[in-house]
Amino acid sequence: MAAPEISDTRFTLSQADIPSAWFNVAPHLSSPLDPPLHPVTREPVGPDDLAPLFAAELIGQEMSADPWIDIPGEVLDVLRLWRPTPLIRARRLEAALGTTARIYYKDESVSPAGSHKPNSAVPQAYYNAREGIARLATETGAGQWGTALAFACAQFGLECAVYMVRKSFEQKPYRKVIMETWGGSVVPSPIDDPDNAGSLGAAISDAVRDAVGREDTHYALGSVLNHVLLHQTVIGLEAQQQLTQAGETRPDVVIAPCGGGSNLGGVALPFLPDPAVRLLAAEPASCPTLTRGSYEYDFGDTAGLTPMMNMYTLGHDFMPPGIHAGGLRYHGDSPIISKLVHEGRMEAVAHRQKAVFEANVLFARVEGKLPAPEAGHGIASAIAEANDATAKDEERVILVNYCGHGLLDLSAYEDHLAGTLPEEP
Amino acid sequence: MAAPEISDTRFTLSQADIPSAWFNVAPHLSSPLDPPLHPVTREPVGPDDLAPLFAAELIGQEMSADPWIDIPGEVLDVLRLWRPTPLIRARRLEAALGTTARIYYKDESVSPAGSHKPNSAVPQAYYNAREGIARLATETGAGQWGTALAFACAQFGLECAVYMVRKSFEQKPYRKVIMETWGGSVVPSPIDDPDNAGSLGAAISDAVRDAVGREDTHYALGSVLNHVLLHQTVIGLEAQQQLTQAGETRPDVVIAPCGGGSNLGGVALPFLPDPAVRLLAAEPASCPTLTRGSYEYDFGDTAGLTPMMNMYTLGHDFMPPGIHAGGLRYHGDSPIISKLVHEGRMEAVAHRQKAVFEANVLFARVEGKLPAPEAGHGIASAIAEANDATAKDEERVILVNYCGHGLLDLSAYEDHLAGTLPEEP
Repeated sequence: MAAPEISDTRFTLSQADIPSAWFNVAPHLSSPLDPPLHPVTREPVGPDDLAPLFAAELIGQEMSADPWIDIPGEVLDVLRLWRPTPLIRARRLEAALGTTARIYYKDESVSPAGSHKPNSAVPQAYYNAREGIARLATETGAGQWGTALAFACAQFGLECAVYMVRKSFEQKPYRKVIMETWGGSVVPSPIDDPDNAGSLGAAISDAVRDAVGREDTHYALGSVLNHVLLHQTVIGLEAQQQLTQAGETRPDVVIAPCGGGSNLGGVALPFLPDPAVRLLAAEPASCPTLTRGSYEYDFGDTAGLTPMMNMYTLGHDFMPPGIHAGGLRYHGDSPIISKLVHEGRMEAVAHRQKAVFEANVLFARVEGKLPAPEAGHGIASAIAEANDATAKDEERVILVNYCGHGLLDLSAYEDHLAGTLPEEP
Repeated sequence: MAAPEISDTRFTLSQADIPSAWFNVAPHLSSPLDPPLHPVTREPVGPDDLAPLFAAELIGQEMSADPWIDIPGEVLDVLRLWRPTPLIRARRLEAALGTTARIYYKDESVSPAGSHKPNSAVPQAYYNAREGIARLATETGAGQWGTALAFACAQFGLECAVYMVRKSFEQKPYRKVIMETWGGSVVPSPIDDPDNAGSLGAAISDAVRDAVGREDTHYALGSVLNHVLLHQTVIGLEAQQQLTQAGETRPDVVIAPCGGGSNLGGVALPFLPDPAVRLLAAEPASCPTLTRGSYEYDFGDTAGLTPMMNMYTLGHDFMPPGIHAGGLRYHGDSPIISKLVHEGRMEAVAHRQKAVFEANVLFARVEGKLPAPEAGHGIASAIAEANDATAKDEERVILVNYCGHGLLDLSAYEDHLAGTLPEEP
């Protein structure tokens, strides 16, 4: 690898630099996570309770205390269709802001599904296929996760059933087309109430019911759970190598949008052991789980079918407003992320939709890429950090996860440009 | 740069490897190109005739005989937002075909606009801005070129007026949203006949009229002309380095979709001096310029405002059917490409729309990316070449240009999956 020029903006790794193991944050936490509780008995759940839903290997990862977990070669074979992803110094954004900070973004939008989601979809499909499962059921809100799982299932010959929040199903017909191109089947949720616009919690209930009811089917979740965040740590592990390539000792702050926590966990957790690195969650003001929720046991879904987890929650019956960042409209949050916020190791801020789109349009004009509405939350936070650094005349190094592109969310841009985005409370 | 593993699938270059000069094919042609003729006098046009439309530097490039033309640093600063683009060995497609061939695709879909088009939009905007022009007018069919020019104009502070074929304008509202996000303005063409579905030739006429009528405005064309193909040669020049990285001496055949010729020229012309490399144009059966047109002088637009060029043409009043590969619906072709086909140095094949989408869906399932309808013509040809190699038990090395993604063309996939693509003659 040639030493990059000082003026370089894109830091790319060779395929040999893809991490060969995932970073497990468990041994680095201040204390073990509180156990998930059975939804009926409220007793801690064990591997047997989860076996109808998940592959044994994934259950093992969910509860593992090993510091590193090897990535199977078959998984790496698929990840290297797009990984390592580039780390990009946003020099033109820096110039537009006139900032003293250095802003780097990790571009996860280059995956087949256009987001970070395949990083976990691929291993989930792989482990299930290896254990003889023929079909996966899942939910999707904005469509990012369902798209990723349909892609991953196509790689390992699995069927894929996606329960899509009805409002998104109707608003975003092209998401369905992509999933079907990869061989997935897509049905609107809730399946038993065609007049209901649906929610992520309700779609989880539909998918879990499907998986429990069929011997050949398991369930797949795209965020929240420990093994999902584990799979996403390839993001932060690559970014560490790339920041070194860029001549940086460490980032001063690592930022990512946060809905269920998977892209935030993926980029931030490998930096947790370094106390000099601040970690920052960016969430929507209209679904302010970390900034305004309670830290307590709650269900992961609306119907109360999933184990209860100790996490920040707005209540499992909370119905967030229909903002465009559908991937962040979740009442709860990852137990790992929740614990870190609760203990003060991670910060959280909330952004209003209009401010997010102003950040997105600025980013698009100077950096050339149209961010997904979800990604804009991270960009808005990165801009705020850069402006704060400028005000204090600090050379702050900012790392933000660019979790997905907005090419399938253009109706949101249309609303923003037309000034018809709804005002939020 | 570490030596790639034999199992590598993606060949990436560092930013230092971006070509610093464009490859000019003119000195490598068997004889000079026939001159463009004035549309009224039918006399050869000189630089003065073109000055109302194009920046002087671009006119110089159009007529240059220099073998290499330096790329300005300000242009490289923008290109390196996404360049060098990856070269990818399509190992999973090879496995699906069971082929003896090796298939490489150059991924131009990673640009901000999602296609190869910004490679020329950026220098065109740059040279015009440097000469004091404040505004560019252009046409767009499917939307790829207008999108690219809006992005490029945003980088250099130019206004951008895009005349969009009315049928596309109505069918693809999201293309307009992207262009407007970058600050462009978009109007349906023909501007004087709201009941007319429009054509690329008519939109060129609208844009030329705009540019001629305003002192502060020049015209920009996204294909056909020599300087556009020149700018696109970064594609082939990078691919040469990457094939060496992959351990290949040369490609046996270089393939690209061909409408006006810019992506084909970009990937193929740097290989022209090597007689062992076959060059192949893939065009739509419904707009078969190279395979069924006449080689003669014709106008570039419908109204007869542009200079006449010696090229393959279906007649400047030819109205191609409304296929989804809107970027390939052009009656004429690049004079350079036309000359090479006429002299037998380049081959041409035509594909029907349904076969193109079958190739696209196979590609999407195994390689993970949804190609643009235009790109599918190259993929269909690459698959045919691979199958031919297999039948002859040859280790054929195939290089195909993946000129754009299909994320803004999903209605075409929807029609294909539903079996409602129209049959072609």
